Parts: sequence; structure tokens; C-alpha cells
Amino acid sequence: MNQANAILLLSCPDQKGLVANVSDFIFRHGGNIVHADQHTSLPEKMFFMRIEWELEGFAIPRQEIDAAFRPLADRFQMKWEIHFSDYIPRIALFISRHVHCFYDLILRQRMGELNAEIPLVISNHLDLKSLAEEFGLSFYHFPITSKDKTQQERQEIELLNQHGIDLIILARYMQILTPSFIARYCNRIINIHHSFLPAFAGGKPYQQAYDRGVKIIGATSHYVTAQLDEGPIIAQDVIKISHRDSVQEIILKGKDMERIVLARAVKLHLENRILVFGSKTIVFE
Amino acid sequence: MNQANAILLLSCPDQKGLVANVSDFIFRHGGNIVHADQHTSLPEKMFFMRIEWELEGFAIPRQEIDAAFRPLADRFQMKWEIHFSDYIPRIALFISRHVHCFYDLILRQRMGELNAEIPLVISNHLDLKSLAEEFGLSFYHFPITSKDKTQQERQEIELLNQHGIDLIILARYMQILTPSFIARYCNRIINIHHSFLPAFAGGKPYQQAYDRGVKIIGATSHYVTAQLDEGPIIAQDVIKISHRDSVQEIILKGKDMERIVLARAVKLHLENRILVFGSKTIVFE
Amino acid sequence: MNQANAILLLSCPDQKGLVANVSDFIFRHGGNIVHADQHTSLPEKMFFMRIEWELEGFAIPRQEIDAAFRPLADRFQMKWEIHFSDYIPRIALFISRHVHCFYDLILRQRMGELNAEIPLVISNHLDLKSLAEEFGLSFYHFPITSKDKTQQERQEIELLNQHGIDLIILARYMQILTPSFIARYCNRIINIHHSFLPAFAGGKPYQQAYDRGVKIIGATSHYVTAQLDEGPIIAQDVIKISHRDSVQEIILKGKDMERIVLARAVKLHLENRILVFGSKTIVFE
Amino acid sequence: MNQANAILLLSCPDQKGLVANVSDFIFRHGGNIVHADQHTSLPEKMFFMRIEWELEGFAIPRQEIDAAFRPLADRFQMKWEIHFSDYIPRIALFISRHVHCFYDLILRQRMGELNAEIPLVISNHLDLKSLAEEFGLSFYHFPITSKDKTQQERQEIELLNQHGIDLIILARYMQILTPSFIARYCNRIINIHHSFLPAFAGGKPYQQAYDRGVKIIGATSHYVTAQLDEGPIIAQDVIKISHRDSVQEIILKGKDMERIVLARAVKLHLENRILVFGSKTIVFE
Repeated sequence: MNQANAILLLSCPDQKGLVANVSDFIFRHGGNIVHADQHTSLPEKMFFMRIEWELEGFAIPRQEIDAAFRPLADRFQMKWEIHFSDYIPRIALFISRHVHCFYDLILRQRMGELNAEIPLVISNHLDLKSLAEEFGLSFYHFPITSKDKTQQERQEIELLNQHGIDLIILARYMQILTPSFIARYCNRIINIHHSFLPAFAGGKPYQQAYDRGVKIIGATSHYVTAQLDEGPIIAQDVIKISHRDSVQEIILKGKDMERIVLARAVKLHLENRILVFGSKTIVFE
Repeated sequence: MNQANAILLLSCPDQKGLVANVSDFIFRHGGNIVHADQHTSLPEKMFFMRIEWELEGFAIPRQEIDAAFRPLADRFQMKWEIHFSDYIPRIALFISRHVHCFYDLILRQRMGELNAEIPLVISNHLDLKSLAEEFGLSFYHFPITSKDKTQQERQEIELLNQHGIDLIILARYMQILTPSFIARYCNRIINIHHSFLPAFAGGKPYQQAYDRGVKIIGATSHYVTAQLDEGPIIAQDVIKISHRDSVQEIILKGKDMERIVLARAVKLHLENRILVFGSKTIVFE
Repeated sequence: MNQANAILLLSCPDQKGLVANVSDFIFRHGGNIVHADQHTSLPEKMFFMRIEWELEGFAIPRQEIDAAFRPLADRFQMKWEIHFSDYIPRIALFISRHVHCFYDLILRQRMGELNAEIPLVISNHLDLKSLAEEFGLSFYHFPITSKDKTQQERQEIELLNQHGIDLIILARYMQILTPSFIARYCNRIINIHHSFLPAFAGGKPYQQAYDRGVKIIGATSHYVTAQLDEGPIIAQDVIKISHRDSVQEIILKGKDMERIVLARAVKLHLENRILVFGSKTIVFE
Repeated sequence: MNQANAILLLSCPDQKGLVANVSDFIFRHGGNIVHADQHTSLPEKMFFMRIEWELEGFAIPRQEIDAAFRPLADRFQMKWEIHFSDYIPRIALFISRHVHCFYDLILRQRMGELNAEIPLVISNHLDLKSLAEEFGLSFYHFPITSKDKTQQERQEIELLNQHGIDLIILARYMQILTPSFIARYCNRIINIHHSFLPAFAGGKPYQQAYDRGVKIIGATSHYVTAQLDEGPIIAQDVIKISHRDSVQEIILKGKDMERIVLARAVKLHLENRILVFGSKTIVFE
């Protein structure tokens, strides 16, 4: 028995008949829609949709849905992708020396909170090697310097390909990726930045927050683009602080936000709930 | 030129073809869908939908949409209602002695934040009479006692009918309505309760919160049912407190929550974003 | 009978004996301390204190407390001020065309939520004149242009002096004050900025928030300094938004934050709970 | 060199001279106060204080502070305790089958976020035995039934004594402790309840929250008393939900709250920031 669902994510210029045609396509072939969400952005006259239906009873075999849907998609100039809920995405964790986001993701995966496998941990430092191995993870060390970055990234890409990686998570990874690496994983690299972006971009946000005397700090998870800290934001959250909080205490409070916000963004991505349009996301929660 | 939209709210047993048939109905008659949101409740196998489309270019005149849609609705056993975005709902404010929610709603209406008229203020006390009149509102005094409640409510209903009232807001109104009154305005009476329900139902929630030593207080806006403080919840929000907050300070902090939560619930209702199912709401934000 | 309290705010280099000496000063003269809060900032080696005691039973008449405390203050190189809880501060509201913060403060004052009088409303526009007068407030129009700003500010200062103004609130006042005006009211001008500073400083924060695709917006209340939007932050709060929120809806949600954050900051100031140190505040809540 | 601080927690009937006498006691013996916080509860006329000073330079050896302070304490009828910041408290984790709070605390301890040791894990089930041992923890199984509870608890107490346990954490431990066990660890047993108490006390809070249709869920950490779910609340937090959240998704969201709220409460306890008065806490953050 096939318990899986198909998930269609699409965007196109807004026009009449979009919902009717897409839902009719599913209905006509016997599909039962279990979730549907849409958004029309009036300033840009764009239409976005996420629609999920049961494969059981659906007349088109999953490998043929693509071809069957294409004529409709072409007619409306859609950008689109189809996912299946029983596919287990494969994640590569990029880490440096901070351990909290690493722990959090590993344990959520273990507890079944993340529908994914993590076959691969990559780091520019050796500090967390034994820890990763303690959790049974394959650890690869790429001691990247500015000189050999392109060459080392080429090796990383090879490794990512070998392991069939779908998603890269920068779990407080402290190395800037090259534009060509990023382009290869467009909207498939998720970063956690330890501030409420666009406030305090850059390397020392907690110190900056302390110095500025803000009363709230935050964390931001976003897709990585060539512009550092400027990729489409997926999730943000905040926590209150006061004059009593030293930089050290701000860091501690911030870590909880980082964990939660990164995990939330990863979960949304894994459930195929995110559409990227320009520098922004549409998140169908 | 007709700038208005039609808004269809419906619920029915879940089944295949719902989205397809409803969206096709709109598309076939030339309607452009601007918002659509649906929800399937798996435990109850129920389907809920809010769909909004432009009347401009829609082939069916608005007074005939009802009849045109009925066959489809019947086929799927839908409960449904159609609203038009250019209709200005008429609100009756029920108040007693607290003034903060009254002020808040009056001023939001004045500032254009609420798409509604407020032709009528009803109170069981005279305290706020001059204030209501200062704002140019018609004030009616019903000094209800337990003896004459039914009779006075009959007069209230007459008044509400005369003014074509669509929605009753209990802005900290301190009188219990009779079940028969409530039944007449089913899902059209919104109350604000000054606690995070179901915690601290009843008359003295802030004192109870203080006595219990909770670290967070809240406010809850809900439709009124015959069971006091148990109607379907529309909106809730909370604010942190500490041991430093006296009952008086808790009340002050709570007032801000009450204002915001009541206004949010009223706005959601006026925009026809709420479906009630059993004792719960589906809120299509 | 004297029900008032004295409130002492002080800051000085950290050293031994501060709490002991200050509390002994109060105790020795028969004062009963009802609140005391202190903060030591380790990086700056600074000590901050707010201490409040009942004047009833205190041996020193209030007009002599200053002189009596001075030797102790001098010994520890304190910056300090003494306030009395029965003094009613006098506020001047500066407004332009936005009405929501104006309404909010006026009504809080009316409801007794703010311990202050508002004898004066100043605006660079005439739009809200009749509204201010409807609330019985004296309205003064200063149609400031870049040319005559200094001269008009001189007239404003005269007016503020005449009315014995203690605190200026910029309730969405859309004119930049000159450094000399600001210097005269150092830490006595409170502004509300409609973003979560330091994100989106400047004139169009909601549009910027929309364009950047942030998932949370905020509001910031701060003392005004010569550096626009960079004064010491008093209070901040945030609210979640999503891709569904148009700029218009972001503005609406933001207005609630602005009202609450400005009112909170004003209340903290009126209760003498704020110490400014450099570009930051210590808020003794 | 002695880097530790002494922390004095005290409560007594409010009266003049408390701050002066306590701070003078510290100052007179050469102590440098680094934190001091107090609270006067007016309805109960009670005074609460937390004061922390450096032992370096303090004239009284730490083992004699008790005796030295006693006369002052007696004079003011104080309840009081003294702690030292370099003492590492010892925690026993009580668990059943849920793993998320267990993981969270273990990893925070590992990452240095909790100043404590965890020599002991006790469970009424064997499910998490191998996991606990994987983390190098001593695991003890007490398969408690209603019949032999008292006897088994006697063995637990022996074990807790052997390991010098200061604090018991019920990390989603699903067994009710006897009043005599609780009495022995008065204000030293911290529980996490998976709801925003007093809403949804009892065993199935997430299901209840779903059934009631609340828009916000929460978690509550409290000291355990003989009245189930009614002990003094230490920390609470909440998260928004909507009609889209199934019970399963509510559980998932709730788990993040449970982790954070429990960790926060434990941290506050370990830093000696909590005073219990009746059924409430004073938390000096």
C-alpha cells in the first residue's frame, strides 16, 4: 500500500484559472488533496502554491507525474517542483567549533523529529571529530584557507555528490563559501546567523548587541547566497535581554534561539514548505 | 467599477474533488481568485475552506451567486456562507464600567483599522454614558437584574434589529447573557476574557494569577456560548510577569493584552476569516 | 500624612561599601526602604542603583535631602538625582500626522495609567489640531522648515519653559531636532522608532522590512541624541509577520507595537526607573 | 586565590534597617557586593533578598560565616541560607520514556551551560538504560508499582544520599512521588509539566489543548509539592499554535518549550536565584 503523498510547489505570474486547473489535474486523476495553500503577491502579481495529495488512488505513477503535469505548467509559465513525502532527504552538516547546533540537529534526527539522514559531517577544524564519530557520523576535515578554498571545495562537492546530499546545513560553520559553490546548491544551503538580521550582520553579533544596548536579541535562519547574511530569510525568533546580561549570558540565551530557529528552518525545508522568490521566502506553514 | 471581492466560507465532510469543484465554479464564471486557504482536519475527516475572488469580471451578479452555488454545495453537504468585502458590518458594543477596550475599539474604528460601523453602545451601567456620547455614539442603558433579564434582553434584541446589528462585542461587559439571547447571535458575539483560558475562568482572573504565582498572564477572545468562558477561542496572547508585579500592575499589563487580543479577534471576524467547528475555530489568517 | 516616597538614582565607579553606606544613610534617618535594585557592570567597573523609601518617618525634610546626601555622594563620586513619587511630571507631546501614539498616550493618561500631565501638544502640521483640542489639549503649531528651525525651536523652548515641561515625547514626530535643542533636554526626550533598531533605521522601516522579507517586525523606544535613531534604547518589542502581510498590514501590526513600546518607555521614565550610561540604559523594572 | 562568591538568600517580615544591616555586615568584614536584589511583598509585609559578594578580601572564613551572621538573622527573624559559587551541585535525573528533556540537560551539562554534576539517573523503565550508559551515566532502575512505592523510594533515598544529591530533576518522569519523599527534598525537586499551568493539569495536556482549541500552548517548571501540578512555579513559556497543528505537531512544538523551560528553571535553582514563599517563587534574575 502506498501511504506517500505528492507535494507540488509552484510559482508563476498570477492569472485566472490557476487553482482550478491545478486542483482539477489532481482530481481528474483520482488524487485526494490533503493540504493546499496559496499566496498571491499583489505588488509583483505573482502566484505561489503548495499542494499535497495522496498518491494512493492517484492514477499517474509517480515517475510519470512530471511529464503529465508539464503541459499545464508550461501553459501558465510555472516554475515548479514535485516531491514525495516518503523520500528521506540526505543532509551534510558543516560545522566548525561550536557544538550546540550540531548537537541539536543530531538529536532531533535521532528522536525522529527530522525526516532526514545525516550521512556526512564536514568541518574546517578537527575539534569536533571525535564527538561526531561518537555519534556514529562520518567526519571529513577540510582545513580550508583562503588560498586553496576553490580546490578544497571541489573535493567537498565530490564528496557531497558521492553521498547524494540534498541539503547542506551550516551549523555555525565559520567559513565563507565561494559563489560558485553556493550557486551549485542554490536554495539548498541553510545557515543560522546569531542575530536578528538585518541587525548585526557579520561576525560578532552578540558583542554588538551588548554594545548597542538592545533589549531583545534574536537568531535568523536563511538560505545562503553570494551576499553574506543577505539570503532569503526562512525563520527568525527573539528573546528578551536586559542590562543584567553580560556578553556571556547573551551568548547563552542566544544559543537557545539559534538551535530552535535553525531546527525550525530545516524542518520547513525538509517538508517542502518553502518557496523562494527573489530575496524573500514564502513559507507555507 | 466594482472593486469588491466575494468571500466564500465553507465546511463539509472531506472528500475528493472539493478544491477542484469550488475553484472550477469560480473560474468557469470568470472569477479571479485572490486568496484561498483550506484545512483538512484528519481526526474529524472535515474540510474547511475560505476562498476570495474579485467580483469584477465574475459573470454571476452578486445576488444570484447564492442560488448558483447551491447545487454544488448540496452535492458535497456543505455548510457555507458568502460575504462581500464592500459590506460594512454593524457592531453593537456592550460595556459596563471598564473603559480600555471601549476606547481601543472606538479609536481603531475612527482610525480606519476596523472595517465596521458602531451605531450602538449598550451598558448595564450609566458610568460611561457621557463618554460614549462624547464620541458621538448612541448610548442605551439596560440596568439588568436577574429578575428582569429576559424582558430587558427582549428590548435589547429589538434595538439590535432596528440598527441592523451584525456583531455584538462584549468589551468587558459584566453581565451574563441568557442562552436564548446567545442562540440568536450564534457565533456573532465576541467576548474578551482577561486570562489565558482555560486557566482562570470566572470573575477575578488577575487576582487568581497573582495568588497562583504564574509567570505569564494572558487574554482570550472567544465567541460566546451558553457555557461561560468555554466558547470557541479566536485569539489569545500573553505577557510575562514576575514576583515584582502587584495585582494592580498585573491588571495594567493585562489591559494591553485585552485590547490587542479583542481587536485582533474582531478584525478576523470582520474580514470573514473564522469558521467555527464544534467548540473550536479555524482561523484563516 | 505624607504618603510619598523618595527615589534615589545613582551611578558611580564600583567600590566596596556602596550599598552599605547608601542604605545606612536612609536607615539612620528613619527611612523604610520599599524598593532597592542595583547593578554592577563588570566591564566598565560601574555601579548603578535605584533605591526608594518612604518619606513618612524619614527625619530629613524633602528639600534638605539633597544637601544631607551630598557628602556621601561626593565621597563615592556619584552622579545622582532624587525624585519624589508625588510629583506629577509634565509632558509635551510632539506630533505630526500619525494619530495612533497620540491617542494611546492621551487615553492612558486619562485612564490614570500614566502619572503625568500633558499640558502641551506641539506639531509641525495642523492636521491634528482639532483632534487635540477635542481632547481639551493646548495645541501649538510650529511649521518648521530647514531654514527657520533654530528660530522656531527657540520659541518652542520658551513655551516648554512656560509650561514647566519635564519630558518631551516624540509620538511619531517627523522632524529632526537640532543638537542644541536635544542637549537642553538630555535624556528627557523619548522617541518611538517603528523598527527593531538597529535594523531599519531611517524613514521607511516597514517598507524596508517588507522588502527584506523579515519574519518579525518591532518597535524601539529610545532617548533622543544628536545621532538619529542611535540614542539609548529604553524598550523594544516585536511581532511576527509572514509573507501574507502586505506593507499595509505590516504597518497595522507595527502600530500596536509602537503604542505599547512607547507607553512602556514613558511609564518607566515617569517612575524614575531608567539610568543612562553612555549609549545604553539600565532599566530597573 | 579565592575567586568564589558567597550568596545569601533570606526572607523575613519587612521592617526598617534590613538592607542597611545586611549590607553593613558584609561591608564591615571587607566584602565587595557584586549583586544584590530585594523584594518587598506589600500584601504579606514580607522582605526577600539575594545578595552576593566576593569571598576574596572577606574577613570571615567561609565555614564561620554562618555563625557570624546568625545573631543578625535571629534579630530580624530571618529564614536564610548561604551558598558558595564554587560549589558544584549534584543532580539526580529521574526519567521514564521521554528522551528530549534528558538529552537537553545532559548536553547542556556537557557544554558547560549548567554548573552541576549528574552522577545519577533513575528510571521506572529500562527503555533509556543503554542511552544513559552511552553518555557515561550511572543508571538505576526502580520499577515502581503502587504496592511497593514506599519501599522502593526508601532505596532511592539511600542511593541519593550515597551520591550526595542536592537536586532532583523530574525530566518527564511519569510516577507520582509520595508526600514523605517530597517532604525530604522540599524545594529541591524540579518538575516540568507540559502545559501552561494551571491550564491542563494532569496527564494529557497536549490532547486537552487540542480538544479545547487554544491558540497558544506552554510549559511550566515548578518545585514538586504533595499537591500534583500545584507546586511553586519557577518558569513558564509559551508558543503559538493554530488549527493546522495536529496533536502530534503540538507535541513537537511543546517539546521545545519543555526543554527550554526546564533548563531555565534548573539554571535559576543552581545559581541560587529562587526563594519560595508559600505557593509562589521569588526569582531574582
